[in-house]
Amino acid sequence: MTQPSDKALVPFVSVDHMMGLIHHLGIEQTLRGLADYIEADFRRWERFDKSPRVASHSDVGVIELMPTSDGEAYGFKYVNGHPKNTSEGLQTVTAFGLLADVYTGYPVLLSEMTILTALRTAATSAMAAKYLAPGESRVMAMIGNGAQAEFQSLAMKAICGIDTVRLYDIDPKATQKAARNLAGMGLRVVECKSAEESMEGAQIITTCTADKQYATILTDNMVGSGVHINAIGGDCPGKTELAPAILYRSDIFVEYPEQTRIEGEIQQMAPDHPVTELWQVITGAAPGRRDARAITLFDSVGFAIEDFSALRFLRDAIRGTDFFAPLDLLADPDDPRDLFGMLRRAAPPA
Amino acid sequence: MTQPSDKALVPFVSVDHMMGLIHHLGIEQTLRGLADYIEADFRRWERFDKSPRVASHSDVGVIELMPTSDGEAYGFKYVNGHPKNTSEGLQTVTAFGLLADVYTGYPVLLSEMTILTALRTAATSAMAAKYLAPGESRVMAMIGNGAQAEFQSLAMKAICGIDTVRLYDIDPKATQKAARNLAGMGLRVVECKSAEESMEGAQIITTCTADKQYATILTDNMVGSGVHINAIGGDCPGKTELAPAILYRSDIFVEYPEQTRIEGEIQQMAPDHPVTELWQVITGAAPGRRDARAITLFDSVGFAIEDFSALRFLRDAIRGTDFFAPLDLLADPDDPRDLFGMLRRAAPPA
Repeated sequence: MTQPSDKALVPFVSVDHMMGLIHHLGIEQTLRGLADYIEADFRRWERFDKSPRVASHSDVGVIELMPTSDGEAYGFKYVNGHPKNTSEGLQTVTAFGLLADVYTGYPVLLSEMTILTALRTAATSAMAAKYLAPGESRVMAMIGNGAQAEFQSLAMKAICGIDTVRLYDIDPKATQKAARNLAGMGLRVVECKSAEESMEGAQIITTCTADKQYATILTDNMVGSGVHINAIGGDCPGKTELAPAILYRSDIFVEYPEQTRIEGEIQQMAPDHPVTELWQVITGAAPGRRDARAITLFDSVGFAIEDFSALRFLRDAIRGTDFFAPLDLLADPDDPRDLFGMLRRAAPPA
Repeated sequence: MTQPSDKALVPFVSVDHMMGLIHHLGIEQTLRGLADYIEADFRRWERFDKSPRVASHSDVGVIELMPTSDGEAYGFKYVNGHPKNTSEGLQTVTAFGLLADVYTGYPVLLSEMTILTALRTAATSAMAAKYLAPGESRVMAMIGNGAQAEFQSLAMKAICGIDTVRLYDIDPKATQKAARNLAGMGLRVVECKSAEESMEGAQIITTCTADKQYATILTDNMVGSGVHINAIGGDCPGKTELAPAILYRSDIFVEYPEQTRIEGEIQQMAPDHPVTELWQVITGAAPGRRDARAITLFDSVGFAIEDFSALRFLRDAIRGTDFFAPLDLLADPDDPRDLFGMLRRAAPPA
């Protein structure tokens, strides 16, 4: 008779575990580690099962499942998007995810992913900027100072070497919050009174605003040549941040065109508007920045492979640490056919 | 400033909790409760978001996500199917599931579903038999004595009032296992040496075998008139149990035709072979059993709504009990925009 398998206990990373792990590794080291895993998976992009997310829409939000697999591991993320939550004291986005072994079908990791998604989004942005931003980029404009702003700032420092972040938000309280959080972390932080002011001297312009509507955060005349735009906030149908005129002047880079054409900035463009897949820049199959004066645009909406990379990173990072707990998630009777016997034997004494 | 929400802690039902709860309620009472919730959801079938499962196939198995929503709650199940696992001492099928609040997008329940799926499958079968089997059904043939056999037997007792189960499996050890597990549970249990023998005097014939191939567990001459066939084992492309001739003689009832035509017994039939949707029998919109001599066939493959019903049942059943634990799954900062601040404040003292 075989013994119950230790595979029945799934390592679980709670929110507390996640925060402990990040401080154990260091925030910037965590961002660099994530970027390395994401970059490695972008290099083998063609190996992945890819499909648009599976969405369940309601009047007030959306719940999505984002699965993918590289043939050895399978991962998915559960994520909601409820813009009205903020006004009710709840998170707009919460997330958790799972990694499983394709060979057995058994889960091997369950984790919170609200914090992990914030980190992987920033790490992906910085990895893209490493390939696309002008050389010697030292200053980033950070427009939209919500939950993602500090993660973006630190990832651009850790991975691209920026030394200055210029913050702007229509709500000055959000800017103050971000400035307070970034104090003492090795970045020069400048609080700005307008989007234009924030972009002075910036080689990288990150937009991450939250309005669910066609908003124009950047107009054409605001954007000069020789910059990299990292557009994070346009991430669902009806939500964009950039004036179309900017898109016409930019070389546009995307994660997964099938999804970005629905959710990203390019939903404003013709369905055949030319874009380059970022993974091809990383493998060298496609050019990145053409010259110092080009405007590069990373039209980022977030893709399942980035979550998969983040879960792979986490699985390796928790090994040998205490930043997880075993979860009794899977029934695993001695004899696989004897599920009922296991249940019956668990009866309390009469 | 708002306080962290108790919504950040998600009730989790482990395998141990699940077994404890079932014994607390009683196995038959649990099966009846599940059948009631499933029947209630079949009655409001048209309200659900329905889609075929999202499958990731490999050479050795499949991993699936099965989401659905009634507009108020959202549920999904993760389930794998790896027939080769049994020979490696692992479960062919493991599962877990989640229920969330559509209004906030926040998960409200995470649970093991290996045991819960076994129960909901049996409860669904018995609910269907309640509507379709001949009146005064007292004897069930149970062909295939694997992990589902005892659950089917007890559900048919609890919900349809059978008093005798006649067991058959090509592996006598499986039959002995099922007979041993069912001893003392109020059923007359007869171990049979052939499928034909098991069907003597049976009004209900349940087939639940595990071969992933076109197998013929029941041939045409074995099946007389005036019976209900509950076909559970044909549940993926290439896996069926019944000779097509039986299907031609039967009135066929299914869960969700779009899925059953791919996965069920009727994959052997023309794509327009007539079937009745079970929910319409329950609401009275379609006839069930025509007369005492008809052969009714429930071609069951399992559908997301049944898992949703099971999770609803569980959410209500654990209320006021100790059969769950709060799981720190969701990051929930005081200020939703201050995710980074929450992380930074969690730093251990230098």
